[in-house]
Amino acid sequence: MTITLFTAESSIGWVSHIALEESGLEYEAKALDFSQGQQGSAEYLKINAKARVPSLMVDQGVITETPAILTYLAQLAPTSSLALPENPFEQAMINAFNLYLCSTVHVAHAHKHRGTRWVDDERALKLLTDNVPKTMAVCADMMENQMVKGPWVHGEKFSTSDPYLYRILTWFDADGVDIAQYPKLKAHRDAMDQRESVKAVKAFFHHE
Amino acid sequence: MTITLFTAESSIGWVSHIALEESGLEYEAKALDFSQGQQGSAEYLKINAKARVPSLMVDQGVITETPAILTYLAQLAPTSSLALPENPFEQAMINAFNLYLCSTVHVAHAHKHRGTRWVDDERALKLLTDNVPKTMAVCADMMENQMVKGPWVHGEKFSTSDPYLYRILTWFDADGVDIAQYPKLKAHRDAMDQRESVKAVKAFFHHE
Repeated sequence: MTITLFTAESSIGWVSHIALEESGLEYEAKALDFSQGQQGSAEYLKINAKARVPSLMVDQGVITETPAILTYLAQLAPTSSLALPENPFEQAMINAFNLYLCSTVHVAHAHKHRGTRWVDDERALKLLTDNVPKTMAVCADMMENQMVKGPWVHGEKFSTSDPYLYRILTWFDADGVDIAQYPKLKAHRDAMDQRESVKAVKAFFHHE
Repeated sequence: MTITLFTAESSIGWVSHIALEESGLEYEAKALDFSQGQQGSAEYLKINAKARVPSLMVDQGVITETPAILTYLAQLAPTSSLALPENPFEQAMINAFNLYLCSTVHVAHAHKHRGTRWVDDERALKLLTDNVPKTMAVCADMMENQMVKGPWVHGEKFSTSDPYLYRILTWFDADGVDIAQYPKLKAHRDAMDQRESVKAVKAFFHHE
């Protein structure tokens, strides 16, 4: 099977990209240039009408939305670090965490630079941006104190939640949240930075 | 196994509730009174620290986030209408649709009455509310023209996407979107209204 990931440097596409590295599957990554608006090009809209990344193109079609791509890759690579637990409840714990990142933390972050999704008034947009350190700190508290077990999100076993949390944690400093105040989150980010999968994606984007 | 759903009348809890009816599993539903702030009570925060519904309490613990609950129920009831397809790509199509509802459509809707999640300025909140008919219409266009196959979301076979879409469609009129302009969405809502599962949840909340 041919697998192609459409991603972008400043995007959540990193999660699927890191997961592909973890999976051991062969794939190709293609970076869209958001500064050129490539996500809205006629060519890309045929791949993903939502004009977003990530999109994972496989033989059967195109999969969008990070948590859907993660589950799919975990099913395709059942002997990799992404492997799903057999037990449906344990799978649900992974899904629930990924969904908190997707529908709450990522959404809070998006109010910083992408508030035009919900409003177009200049002053309102500034207020949304200004509030991001507060909303992201609430998310950091929740993850540190209620969710992340350590060393990985769900304890001793690595899962799809780990690339996802990692990417979100890379946003925290710029979003005004001091990650040093969250020992489990800080240790998680540091541990992920040492993985070959993360190093490979950084190299792809010429980071460090 | 004992299954308890914590839900609320004006909430996305309906999706899991309808899915429980579709599953044929035995369960109990408990409605929180949001007007009394019960979702923030000390007792409920022990069940769900996020102070949200739905929460699905099962023998092993508590599952949160609608798409995670849907997948779990589908796995628990593999001979019901919720049954997952065998093929991982087809599962991914269901997940991707559910995630669009979760992270884009529900989030757009939430800017109407729950804008305080992201800003606390009165005028900005009003602007967010005023913009909801526009953002929800974009979502309706996307679903009608790019996503929903009909008669059910993914074609001839019912799936977890159907209770989810249904609940979201019940918000459209009040959100300023005329569902009559979207023939597939309108037909979907009408068809769901005829299902015993939907009738049972309406009866639970004394609707109609």
